[in-house]
Amino acid sequence: MKPIAHIKTDFPEKFGIPRQSGLVKDLTGTICFEPPYRNPDAFKGLSGYNYIWLLWAFENPGGEKWAATVKPPRLGGNTSMGVFATRSPFRPNPIGLSSVRLEKMEFTEQGPVLTVSGADLRDGTPIYDIKPYLAYTDCHPDAVDGFAAQRMNQQLKVSFPEELLNIFPPEKRSAILEVLAQDPRPSYQHDASRRYGVSFAGYDVHFYVEGEQLRVTEVIAL
Amino acid sequence: MKPIAHIKTDFPEKFGIPRQSGLVKDLTGTICFEPPYRNPDAFKGLSGYNYIWLLWAFENPGGEKWAATVKPPRLGGNTSMGVFATRSPFRPNPIGLSSVRLEKMEFTEQGPVLTVSGADLRDGTPIYDIKPYLAYTDCHPDAVDGFAAQRMNQQLKVSFPEELLNIFPPEKRSAILEVLAQDPRPSYQHDASRRYGVSFAGYDVHFYVEGEQLRVTEVIAL
Repeated sequence: MKPIAHIKTDFPEKFGIPRQSGLVKDLTGTICFEPPYRNPDAFKGLSGYNYIWLLWAFENPGGEKWAATVKPPRLGGNTSMGVFATRSPFRPNPIGLSSVRLEKMEFTEQGPVLTVSGADLRDGTPIYDIKPYLAYTDCHPDAVDGFAAQRMNQQLKVSFPEELLNIFPPEKRSAILEVLAQDPRPSYQHDASRRYGVSFAGYDVHFYVEGEQLRVTEVIAL
Repeated sequence: MKPIAHIKTDFPEKFGIPRQSGLVKDLTGTICFEPPYRNPDAFKGLSGYNYIWLLWAFENPGGEKWAATVKPPRLGGNTSMGVFATRSPFRPNPIGLSSVRLEKMEFTEQGPVLTVSGADLRDGTPIYDIKPYLAYTDCHPDAVDGFAAQRMNQQLKVSFPEELLNIFPPEKRSAILEVLAQDPRPSYQHDASRRYGVSFAGYDVHFYVEGEQLRVTEVIAL
């Protein structure tokens, strides 16, 4: 297994990254390829698809660090689930799987560059494979979501003072609002006095949460 | 990357295996785990899902054998597409991705055994990972299928003499009929005089094709 590409995203840190792909549709990333994989021929036909799969490397320091059970944040962090019943990064083979929208494909002097949206990956994540999303075999509207379906009812209301939001370029604003609405906190930490910081697109966004209300207090350049 | 499990299917050979998962829903397979991954705790909650992802090892003899372009059988075998615009096994990192239905989960003395249906894998294929299929992030009904959508209009009519079909146990019959209807031939070989053989569930099924009509001539025990 060798990286064929790396993705550039607005998340230098893990904290704040949406827990699955597609949850924040305005998040964009660009995928740049390693020299052996820059042949434009290898991408012929890809623009006929609007979704692609990314197979990528989980950060799993120590390599062998996996356990039979994990405590998913969305279950409050205190319920154990089997690792194979979750998408936890701490699994025997640390490969992530994400479907993202293919927004643009360009051919530059540094090889092909794919712009994707909905990516739940940290900046610099190695990509192992890109495959077209084939609805006839990959899309199952009758799929039952098990316990993960609980995820949607936990959006926060976000109060982001305009003068702070405007520090971000216009095309980044809806994405950071959505990232915050997804509630980046670990679910087991619901201490209203606690201050958090999400690093996004070159800035640290400081906030706290009271009940269902998230309030941004500061935006500081990284 | 180490195999966590292997799948048992009715296909000892590559020829005849459906080109994607789910195309032949009656095909079943059983997944048996390697000793380090037999802890039932690792599967807690998995039965809450009806679809799972398999990440598995493509057979790619020679390891480095990949090319920028491939000629998908479904395009007649004479049109080049970029490898990243196909699900071809001959890719830089030979990892297959298939969603299958989870039919049953049992805990035996040899560890957990998952029965799945719709699998497009050869008997004995190593499995690297099992993940739950999460409809909210994995299912995209708005996905555009590019050129692969051409696949569906090529079903064959199958003539399978009853005395030959009855050689198979009842639970295997609809599956072999569907496998044949999918047209296992390489698309560029449409020679009506040519005889083919698909190995399935312990038997070789011999057939030929005239136009849209497939005729089974023999069923021979392997």
